[in-house]
Amino acid sequence: MTVDPEPADAVAIEIERKFLVAEVPADLDRHPARPVRQGYLAVEPGGGEVRVRQIGDATVLTVKRGEGRTRVEEEVPIEAGAFERLWPLTEGRRVEKVRHLVPAGDGLVLEVDVYEGDLAGLVVAEVEFPSEAVADAWAPPAWLGAEVTADERYKNHRLASDGVPAA
Amino acid sequence: MTVDPEPADAVAIEIERKFLVAEVPADLDRHPARPVRQGYLAVEPGGGEVRVRQIGDATVLTVKRGEGRTRVEEEVPIEAGAFERLWPLTEGRRVEKVRHLVPAGDGLVLEVDVYEGDLAGLVVAEVEFPSEAVADAWAPPAWLGAEVTADERYKNHRLASDGVPAA
Repeated sequence: MTVDPEPADAVAIEIERKFLVAEVPADLDRHPARPVRQGYLAVEPGGGEVRVRQIGDATVLTVKRGEGRTRVEEEVPIEAGAFERLWPLTEGRRVEKVRHLVPAGDGLVLEVDVYEGDLAGLVVAEVEFPSEAVADAWAPPAWLGAEVTADERYKNHRLASDGVPAA
Repeated sequence: MTVDPEPADAVAIEIERKFLVAEVPADLDRHPARPVRQGYLAVEPGGGEVRVRQIGDATVLTVKRGEGRTRVEEEVPIEAGAFERLWPLTEGRRVEKVRHLVPAGDGLVLEVDVYEGDLAGLVVAEVEFPSEAVADAWAPPAWLGAEVTADERYKNHRLASDGVPAA
């Protein structure tokens, strides 16, 4: 079980920036890619959620409970057959996309998510940095559009419930 | 996936009566018994819920979504290790009990649930019938107390969240 945030000496902070993709690179399909399906079985007003996710051949169940300082998260593997039986119960609360891994220089990797299904047309890229300084200094390539790092509407559970945000 | 209720020709109706236990039978421990632990990972206002359950050595995840005529339910096995990792996330929303199977005549079986943990002291018995007529005609043994079949407070998810009902 992971408690987030943990005490200062155990914090695992992710430093990420997220962008809309203004122009999908012509060579996108030449990069490694794998399909991602995730759907929400339950979303509680108090911040709790239960979701199933399939990335390539891996199928997992993730549970989050609580908010802010007391948020707890656990992820466990489930069998492919269990995933397929639970998937129908996520109807109307799904995210389906193909994630492409595009090198972004200096060992950085852009995860370019091309959404499908109800979210078709949306393309978002995310990149994780080793430090705040590197994140601040990073110059996005010209094919990236508006930065949406702080835009809650692009969180997966919001996309799953509310669809593509209005421009 | 099961849809409940299904079309009339496919309905699987459970005819059950539930009673408080006024006096626990002295020979209760001579009957087959197994521990039951169930806890809720999420409970949605709209009737959705996700719970994990351990009966003896079996561990399952159950998801319910929707209400009334559109309620859908699915149950899948999970590994014992996954159950143990998810269990802490059910804190405050648990039912723990030992279920004893007591013959009740005519092939009927009383499931006598002796609750533990926060619900310690509560003992409830449930019996399932093959028809409404048999259910109506059945005379409960003297050691059963008030019938609570229609009392929502004795539903598992209510017991898990709200504790033992006031008398």
